[in-house]
Amino acid sequence: MSDYQPRTDDMQFVLSRVLNAPAQLQALPAFAEVDAALMLQVLEEAGKFVGEVIAPLNRGGDEIGAQWAGGAVTMPTGFKDAYQSFWQSGWPALAASAEDGGQGLPTVLEAMLYEMLSAANHSWTMAPGLLHGAYECIKHHASDELKSHYLEKVATGEWLATMCLTEPHAGSDLGQVRTKATPLPDGQYAVSGTKIFISGGEHDLTDNIVHLVLARLPDAPPGPKGLSLFLVPKFYPDGSRSRVHCDRIEEKMGLHGSPTCVMRFDEAVCAIVGEPGKGLNAMFVMMNAARLHVALQGIGLLDAAWQKADAYSQERRQMRAPGKGKSAGESDLIGEHPAMRRILDTQRAWVDAGRVLAYRTALELDLIKHSPNADTQASAQRWCALVTPVMKSVFTHQAFHGGSDCLQVFGGHGYVREWGIEQIVRDARVAMIYEGTNEIQAIDLLVRKVLADGGNSLNALLDTIALDLPKAAKASTAAQARIQTLRAVTQQIVKASVQDAALAHRVADDYLRAVALVLMDWAWLRIEAGVDDNTVTAQARWINPAKALRSWVLPEFQMRTFIIVQQCTMAA
Amino acid sequence: MSDYQPRTDDMQFVLSRVLNAPAQLQALPAFAEVDAALMLQVLEEAGKFVGEVIAPLNRGGDEIGAQWAGGAVTMPTGFKDAYQSFWQSGWPALAASAEDGGQGLPTVLEAMLYEMLSAANHSWTMAPGLLHGAYECIKHHASDELKSHYLEKVATGEWLATMCLTEPHAGSDLGQVRTKATPLPDGQYAVSGTKIFISGGEHDLTDNIVHLVLARLPDAPPGPKGLSLFLVPKFYPDGSRSRVHCDRIEEKMGLHGSPTCVMRFDEAVCAIVGEPGKGLNAMFVMMNAARLHVALQGIGLLDAAWQKADAYSQERRQMRAPGKGKSAGESDLIGEHPAMRRILDTQRAWVDAGRVLAYRTALELDLIKHSPNADTQASAQRWCALVTPVMKSVFTHQAFHGGSDCLQVFGGHGYVREWGIEQIVRDARVAMIYEGTNEIQAIDLLVRKVLADGGNSLNALLDTIALDLPKAAKASTAAQARIQTLRAVTQQIVKASVQDAALAHRVADDYLRAVALVLMDWAWLRIEAGVDDNTVTAQARWINPAKALRSWVLPEFQMRTFIIVQQCTMAA
Repeated sequence: MSDYQPRTDDMQFVLSRVLNAPAQLQALPAFAEVDAALMLQVLEEAGKFVGEVIAPLNRGGDEIGAQWAGGAVTMPTGFKDAYQSFWQSGWPALAASAEDGGQGLPTVLEAMLYEMLSAANHSWTMAPGLLHGAYECIKHHASDELKSHYLEKVATGEWLATMCLTEPHAGSDLGQVRTKATPLPDGQYAVSGTKIFISGGEHDLTDNIVHLVLARLPDAPPGPKGLSLFLVPKFYPDGSRSRVHCDRIEEKMGLHGSPTCVMRFDEAVCAIVGEPGKGLNAMFVMMNAARLHVALQGIGLLDAAWQKADAYSQERRQMRAPGKGKSAGESDLIGEHPAMRRILDTQRAWVDAGRVLAYRTALELDLIKHSPNADTQASAQRWCALVTPVMKSVFTHQAFHGGSDCLQVFGGHGYVREWGIEQIVRDARVAMIYEGTNEIQAIDLLVRKVLADGGNSLNALLDTIALDLPKAAKASTAAQARIQTLRAVTQQIVKASVQDAALAHRVADDYLRAVALVLMDWAWLRIEAGVDDNTVTAQARWINPAKALRSWVLPEFQMRTFIIVQQCTMAA
Repeated sequence: MSDYQPRTDDMQFVLSRVLNAPAQLQALPAFAEVDAALMLQVLEEAGKFVGEVIAPLNRGGDEIGAQWAGGAVTMPTGFKDAYQSFWQSGWPALAASAEDGGQGLPTVLEAMLYEMLSAANHSWTMAPGLLHGAYECIKHHASDELKSHYLEKVATGEWLATMCLTEPHAGSDLGQVRTKATPLPDGQYAVSGTKIFISGGEHDLTDNIVHLVLARLPDAPPGPKGLSLFLVPKFYPDGSRSRVHCDRIEEKMGLHGSPTCVMRFDEAVCAIVGEPGKGLNAMFVMMNAARLHVALQGIGLLDAAWQKADAYSQERRQMRAPGKGKSAGESDLIGEHPAMRRILDTQRAWVDAGRVLAYRTALELDLIKHSPNADTQASAQRWCALVTPVMKSVFTHQAFHGGSDCLQVFGGHGYVREWGIEQIVRDARVAMIYEGTNEIQAIDLLVRKVLADGGNSLNALLDTIALDLPKAAKASTAAQARIQTLRAVTQQIVKASVQDAALAHRVADDYLRAVALVLMDWAWLRIEAGVDDNTVTAQARWINPAKALRSWVLPEFQMRTFIIVQQCTMAA
C-alpha cells in the first residue's frame, strides 16, 4: 500500500479560503514581505520533501526500530540522511528569527510542515519535534554566553535538543523531581539524577545533542517551585564529552523508530538557564509549543489513516451495498457500504476541523508575538490558552480511536502489518499520554483556565466564535444554541464547585469534549462558507464530511452536557 | 507486574446470586446431578489451572511469537506442554457429551473457563477456541464414518480444529469463496484453493489438526448457496499426510503467540460434512458458538486490563487529589484522582455486566438443548439470536477502547512493554474484526433479526427484561423508560425503512449500542438485587461501578436514540 502523500490543496484551502491567513499575516509588520504566493510555494516544497524523503522511511523505521548498544543509539536506515537533508534545507529554522539563523516565516507554515511530517513518519518527526521549543527557551532564558554556543545550532537544527523532565517516580507530577544540581566554584553546576522517557536522548542524527534538564538546587523548596533548568550538551564547546549516559531505550507499543531513552546524569557539568527556581517557567515555553505540535501529530496521523482506509475502500469489493440489487456473486466497493462510508466521512470531518483549529492557533501565536495591538494580543492569548489543551486532547484521541475505525475498514487485513494501518494506531496511542495526558489537558482547561476566572475567558472566546458564525447558514442556529448551552453549563459548574471541589475533576473530560464540539461546529461552518461552488467535486469533498459531522459527531454534545448537569445536580 | 489472576468469587457471585444458575440447571434432566457445589468446585479448579499454567505464558508468547519455518510452525515456549496438560485434564471436553468422551457439564462452565483463559492468555486460547464449535459441527453434520475417526479426538481436544473460511478476496463476503472441491470416483473429494487468516492452521501443539473447509462443488450456484463443507485432516487415519500446506504466517499488531496461517489446499483428498450446498448451515453452528466465545474474550481481556490498572492505581502516587490539601511535595494514590477513578469504575461496570449477559446466554444455550418446554426453548432461541451479536460487538469494543483507558492509568509506563497493558490493547483489537466484524454484528442484529419480523422478537425480549427489573429499585423507573424509548425507536426505523433501504445500515451501530445499554442497565439492576449486605466492602465493590454506569455509561443511550431518530426523520 502506498505511503502517505501530503494533499497540500486541502491544507491550502483551509489556510487561504477558510482562515484568510496570508492577508492577516501580511498585515503584520513582521511579515510584510510574506505574501500568499510565497507561503504556498513553501507549503508545496515542504509537501514534496515530506512525501519523497520522509514518508518512505516510515515502515522501515517501525520494523528496524532504533537500536541501543553500549550507550549509543543507531537510528533506523535512512533516518540520518533524511535528517541531514532536512536541516540543511532549512526546514527546522522555518519560523526561527532571521537574526538567529532562521527564515522568519509565520508559525502557521511550521505547523503545516509538522502536520505533514507526523502523518508521514511519526517516529522520525519526534527527533526535530522539540527543536522550536528548545530554541524559544534558549532564546528567552539563556545567558548570552550560552546563546553564543547553542542558539544558532538549535535554531537551524544542526544540533537536536531534548526536554528532560520525567523521572521514574515523577511523571505528571514534576514537583517530585529529585535530580540534583550542585553549584560549582566556577559558577557552573553539576547535575546528577536519572531521567526517563527522553525522546531522542541519544541518537546518531546530529553531531551534538542539547539537553534541557529540570533539577533541584540544594536547599530548594519542595514541589515545583524548587525546580531550576539546566543546559547539558552531549559535547561541550571544547569538544569534550559530558557525563550524560543513555542507559537503555524502552520497548514500546509503537514509535519504534524514536528512541525513548533512560538518561543518567552523573555530576554532569552544565550551566543554568534562567533564574534559580524558575525552571518550570522556562520549560513551559517548550511545553506549550509542544502541545500544539502534538495536536498536529493527531491531525496528521488521522489524515494518514484516513488516506489508507479511503484508498482501500475504493479498491476492495465485499457484498452488495443496500439498495444495489441482490444478484448472487456480485459485490460493491466497501466505500459504498453505509457503515464504512460513515467511518470515512467522520474521520475526514475531524481532520478538516482539526486543520482549521490548529492553523488558527498558529496564527494566534504569531499575533501574540507580532501584533502591535494590545487587544488583539489579549484575545490571541485567550484563544491559545483555551484551545490548545482542547486540540491536544481531542485530536490525539481521534488519531487513535478514529485511526482504529480506519483500521476496521480493512477488516482482517487491518490487523496485519503489511497494510501499515495498524502501525498508525500503535504509533498514535502515545500522543494521548505525552506532553500532559489528555486527562491533565481537561483539568488544565476546566480547573485552571475556565473556573479560575469564573468562566469569563471562556465566555469571551465564545463571543468571538458566535460573532464569526456565518449568518446565512441554517446550521448556525443550532451552533448558537450549543454555545448558549455551554455558557449555562459552565455557570452551573462554577456554582456547584463551591460545594464540591472534586466535581470539576470528575466532569473535566466531558467539559473538554463539549468545548471541542462547539469548536468543530464553528470550524465546519467556516469551511462551508469557504466552499464557493456547488460542483459535484465540492459536494463529495466537503458536503459528505459536513453531513457526517452533524449526523454522528455533534450529537455527543448533548450527552456531554447531560452528564455534566447530572453531576452538578448530585453535587448541589 | 503480576500476571492476571482469576477472581472466581466475582464470577461465582454472578453465577449464583445474580443468575441463580445452579438451581436453574439442576432443574433440567440433563443436569440433575450437577449441583451448585460441583459447579463451584469445577470453577475453582479451572481458575487454579488458568492462573498457574496459562497466565505465566502470556508475556513470552507475545515476545517470542509463533515461528514459521519450511511449512512448520513452532509455538512459543511452554505453549505445547500447557496444551497437553489442558486436554489431558479434560478441560476442552467440559461441555461435550459423555458419550463422545466429554464431561457433560453445563455450557456456562465452559463460558467461564474461556473468559479466564482469554484474560490470561488470548493467544494461547485461540488454539482451543474453535474446538467446541468444531465438535458440534462434526457431531451434527458429519457421517458416522467421519465421526468414528474424528468426533472423540475433537471432543476431548486431543486434536485441534480450524475453520477455513476466508480467502484473499472473500472476507466478510463468503459468497465469493473460490476454493474448489472436485468429486473423486471413490466418493471422496479433492479440495484446491488458498485460505487466509486461519488461526492455528499449523502448529506443534497436537499430533493432528482437523480443518473444516468451505469450498465450492463443480456447477454449484454462485454466492453462499453454492458452498459445501469439507473435513481435511493434517494426517489421515492411516497416518499419511494430506496435501494441506501452511505457506506463511502473518505479521500482526498483536496476538503474536497465535499463528495466523495462509493455508494452501492442493487437491487435498477429503470427505464432505453434511449436504452439498449446505456448507454455511453447518459452519454457522461453529460461528454462533464462536461469537459467544469472542464476547467472552472481550470480557476477559477487559478484566485483565482492569486488574493491571487497578493494581497500579493503588501503588503509584502523583500530585494531590482534589480536596486532599495542598502541601507541596506530597501526593496521593492515582486511584484517588477522579479522572482515574472514573476509568477504573467504568471498566468494572462493563466487566460485571458482561458476565451477567454472557453467562445468561450460556444458560440459554443449555435451555435450547435440554429444556423439555417448547416455550422456554423459543424464548432461549430469541435471547441468543438477539443478545449474541450485541455482546460480541460491545465487549470486544470495550476490551480495546476500555483497555486503552486502562493503559492511560499508567501514563507513559502504559506505552512501555514491561507493564503488559499495551499487549492487552494490541491483542484485543482483532476481536472487533473476527467472527464477523462489529459492523456486521450490528447489521445482523438490526436488519436480519429485529426488522425481519417488524420488531416482534425484540419486543418479546424487552418484555422479558422489563418483567425482570427489580420493582423495589429506584433506578428501575429509568430502565423502564429506556425500554419504552427503544420500542418506539424500533418502530420508527421499521416505518422509515420502507422509504430508505440504507437507513438501517446507517444506524445499525447506534441501534446495537442502544440495545446494549438497555441490557447493561438490566444486568446491573440484577447485580444490585443480588448484593445482600450494606457493608463497606460491598459498597466499594459494587456501588462504585453501579454509580459509574449511571454517571458515565448510560447517558450514551439518549445520544444513540437521538442519532437514530434524526436519521429516520431525514429518511421520511
